[in-house]
Amino acid sequence: MLAYMNAEAYRETISTGRVCYYSRSRKKLWRKGEESGNVQQLKSIYYDCDADTLLVKVDQIGGAACHEGYRSCFFRRIDPLTGDVTIVGHRVFDPNQVYKK
Amino acid sequence: MLAYMNAEAYRETISTGRVCYYSRSRKKLWRKGEESGNVQQLKSIYYDCDADTLLVKVDQIGGAACHEGYRSCFFRRIDPLTGDVTIVGHRVFDPNQVYKK
Repeated sequence: MLAYMNAEAYRETISTGRVCYYSRSRKKLWRKGEESGNVQQLKSIYYDCDADTLLVKVDQIGGAACHEGYRSCFFRRIDPLTGDVTIVGHRVFDPNQVYKK
Repeated sequence: MLAYMNAEAYRETISTGRVCYYSRSRKKLWRKGEESGNVQQLKSIYYDCDADTLLVKVDQIGGAACHEGYRSCFFRRIDPLTGDVTIVGHRVFDPNQVYKK
């Protein structure tokens, strides 16, 4: 998954060992898994050559990082030649059950 | 590595089979590897649940995606407890040789 962290989210991630992002649309900290219980336990943090991106390795509780119930948010593959889309992941959970929508 | 694509970069990537980004700082297409020869041959493209991020799998010619000569741009790990930084990748090439700086 890709998400945004601000300095406060980063500090909370470090201090709690649970990954916290910052939602730019909601303008507040996003404690990943707060609603679903599918939190991310921090394993390790890497940063890139120009120091503006973090790579965070986690233990994903519940087995799915994506709110759609897939392990990865990148569960759709595009065929470069035809533009056809294929679902390549399998659903770990049913979002209607987890989020009680 | 993390980089930006605009629609033109995406179309060029699809049509040539070589990954092309868009440099927001230089305001022009960034044909990855144009200078170093270390181009990225397109293997597959995935997109995420909210359809604003691509995951592109490539064959990285030269073995290093990072301009610092590492396979990955994420070659530095931060210790969450101490803040200490450890280099975790090994250099595939010497950037001073490749970029003739």
